[in-house]
Amino acid sequence: MEKKINKVTLLHSGMIVTMDSQNRVYRNGAILIDGDTIIDIGQSSQLLYNYQDHAHSGIIDLQGKIVLPGFINTHVHTSQQLARGIADDVDLLTWLHKRIWPYESNMTEEDSYISTLLCGIELIRSGVTCFAEAGGQHVSEMARAVEQLGLRACLTQSTMDCGQGLPEKWALHTTEYCIQSQKQLYDKHHDTADGRIKIWLGVRQIMNATDKLLLETRDTAKELKTGIHMHVAEIPYENELVVNTREVAHGTVTYLEKIKVLEGNLLAAHSVWVSDNEIDFLSKAKVKVSHCPAAAMRMLGFAPIKEMLDAGICVSLVDEMYLASLINKGREAFTKGTTDPTALPAETILKMATINGAESVLWDNEIGSLQARKRADLIIVDPFSWSMVPVNDCISSLVYCMRTENIESVMCNGQWIMKDRKILTVNEGDVLLSAKKASSELLRRAGITIPSRMNVI
Amino acid sequence: MEKKINKVTLLHSGMIVTMDSQNRVYRNGAILIDGDTIIDIGQSSQLLYNYQDHAHSGIIDLQGKIVLPGFINTHVHTSQQLARGIADDVDLLTWLHKRIWPYESNMTEEDSYISTLLCGIELIRSGVTCFAEAGGQHVSEMARAVEQLGLRACLTQSTMDCGQGLPEKWALHTTEYCIQSQKQLYDKHHDTADGRIKIWLGVRQIMNATDKLLLETRDTAKELKTGIHMHVAEIPYENELVVNTREVAHGTVTYLEKIKVLEGNLLAAHSVWVSDNEIDFLSKAKVKVSHCPAAAMRMLGFAPIKEMLDAGICVSLVDEMYLASLINKGREAFTKGTTDPTALPAETILKMATINGAESVLWDNEIGSLQARKRADLIIVDPFSWSMVPVNDCISSLVYCMRTENIESVMCNGQWIMKDRKILTVNEGDVLLSAKKASSELLRRAGITIPSRMNVI
Repeated sequence: MEKKINKVTLLHSGMIVTMDSQNRVYRNGAILIDGDTIIDIGQSSQLLYNYQDHAHSGIIDLQGKIVLPGFINTHVHTSQQLARGIADDVDLLTWLHKRIWPYESNMTEEDSYISTLLCGIELIRSGVTCFAEAGGQHVSEMARAVEQLGLRACLTQSTMDCGQGLPEKWALHTTEYCIQSQKQLYDKHHDTADGRIKIWLGVRQIMNATDKLLLETRDTAKELKTGIHMHVAEIPYENELVVNTREVAHGTVTYLEKIKVLEGNLLAAHSVWVSDNEIDFLSKAKVKVSHCPAAAMRMLGFAPIKEMLDAGICVSLVDEMYLASLINKGREAFTKGTTDPTALPAETILKMATINGAESVLWDNEIGSLQARKRADLIIVDPFSWSMVPVNDCISSLVYCMRTENIESVMCNGQWIMKDRKILTVNEGDVLLSAKKASSELLRRAGITIPSRMNVI
Repeated sequence: MEKKINKVTLLHSGMIVTMDSQNRVYRNGAILIDGDTIIDIGQSSQLLYNYQDHAHSGIIDLQGKIVLPGFINTHVHTSQQLARGIADDVDLLTWLHKRIWPYESNMTEEDSYISTLLCGIELIRSGVTCFAEAGGQHVSEMARAVEQLGLRACLTQSTMDCGQGLPEKWALHTTEYCIQSQKQLYDKHHDTADGRIKIWLGVRQIMNATDKLLLETRDTAKELKTGIHMHVAEIPYENELVVNTREVAHGTVTYLEKIKVLEGNLLAAHSVWVSDNEIDFLSKAKVKVSHCPAAAMRMLGFAPIKEMLDAGICVSLVDEMYLASLINKGREAFTKGTTDPTALPAETILKMATINGAESVLWDNEIGSLQARKRADLIIVDPFSWSMVPVNDCISSLVYCMRTENIESVMCNGQWIMKDRKILTVNEGDVLLSAKKASSELLRRAGITIPSRMNVI
């Protein structure tokens, strides 16, 4: 009993944006946290009256601050953090064959660990408390980093059992190996780190997956009660190839529907090139879609996000709330010949970054909104800065004006992982130094050189 | 002589991105500054040897840092800084009639002063040392704020002599009044603040300008040897109205060409809806175009920036280098049916934000690149942070990864206006408090209420 009381924290007098099903915002609200769990949430006056005497481990006054659920980033390549700047402004084939594949295939286990730590620092500073790995190298090292960072994650191995032009180092694995190795990772890491880590199954993309892999991945995920993360319909070429080789009318989504792989536990990343018909398939199967606005703009194209949301598809977000809104407003200019500033308003974007994200990673029973009995994953925002003042419309300000500088503190699973802008779980300076070193050594090993853009003397 | 020596500063051992015509980057460079002027620039070893004994007011070691010319933002509405959040996600007519016009027409002189101070803080923190005002209220108060902030600016009055639906408070001014009032501002403020302030002429947009105003603005600008800032071809409706009422084939640009208003001193903001023919007109007349990617995405549409650059038009940038590149890469997906990640590479974007900006504000003889005899307008970037490490491609990292947090110090006209992330010229906290107060009082006066997006209790 004593032990329990000692872990109780009361946050009060802040504006609390709950993102619950009634869209409640407490203008002067409080949250009571015991261990990893939100016990109560409501008006400050009431909670202070009820619990002031019990909150031994901290009564924190949040006057002038805003509390939000931690953001959920549904598509993160932790392995690629050390690859910054190695493939900007180049075409897709150069990107893949000359830069990213040589890079990823030369990663050591230690590289994966450092890359995940560096990526985790960016996530924490961006207010993200939970992420879905898109599929990368050395999952056990990712897990080690995530445990240390204090984040919550669905980790996934980059999985391929066929395909052309892959680096020699990646001997193609049999379908059986692909499934077995993931089952082993599941046994070793699923539900570890106080329940913060889950293991998902991965399919890199349809061009690197046999039908057997697709079907066994579906069945294994069902057996393990976990999710599947897959890149879907990224570029027109992918769809063309599927039409030509797998004999369907449109593309990847149509094919996945045909072989009955579309299910509610599939997280489809990007999904840029989908037809109206395919939007319908995704909607009926309750497939979750991860919208990655920056990557899409840079390499892929514009995903029909508004149409997917209208079709009831759960669309979640990869960082960059501001960008997601802008891009989808701008897209209207092309599809309809005129602009529509009302498309994807701030409240929808905020939903995509929180509760939709939780639903997409199959974790909305525990995270995604601030409610009693959910886990205490939250961020504290200080809006009193040059980037947000004056706050005339709180929700819109959080989406259009908030910057990482405004994110003051981050709690995941009841533990402060950043407090007053200082990351508490890892030594940030040390990680930066290690990352710098590891990255340049990795590029050297992989034989990657970056041409100079200017006249360096 | 003594006095002169005392003002000499030597920055050394940093990477210097000059943005000069030869795209020189000094890997280990130095800059010697005397008063407001760059005296010499070159290899650190050489400059340290030559000038070490003369730099009495400071020898600053910039190891690990990057020096760039101060950015030039070519379209800033200083008056609208207090309007944050009052008109997000609403259509253009609501935006104009119910929010922005009531807001702007209720601004006091003090409001303009405070709004410019707040805006200036954002500019400094974003690494901007020079900006072009898009046309706002109370230019003398803007000038007072700019003088105090230590920034460089081309200030412009919002000028209209016709148009429908304007607020009562803005009694329509005669053409003569419009020209005379701007001449008075020119006499009072042009070339003040040690030459940091210039006065330009403004035309809000063609729907609020008679032919007489357009022609007299052109002639007056020529007489005063200054520039003209005008919103051009923002929305399809504008072009349609011009076609219907002014009898030309396409739109605003075609009409301005017809009445001979297109000249090299015209800074055309947005210019989203222009035909190939009109791009040709702009190019031949050497009109400068200000590209505002975020505003365009939100309300206007996609400007054909790549086509304009290909036609040799000087296109400059409004903040958001990252966004400009993404949006214009993404636009290729629509216009050509496929993406082109090589469109608008980082080095082009950096050029738009510096030397093109200088040319656009007719000031490239003094600013826009780091060269001997130019004014000392520069920024110091610290790339050792979570947002930029590892820096594998310096130029791309500055465009795609740099955040305001990385901008450590800012110098304008030889004076440090931000040093180690502290703004030295105004008290930032005081400005934020005044802005908060002024904004809420202004909204009350203007009768503007913002509907709540969520269930606030």
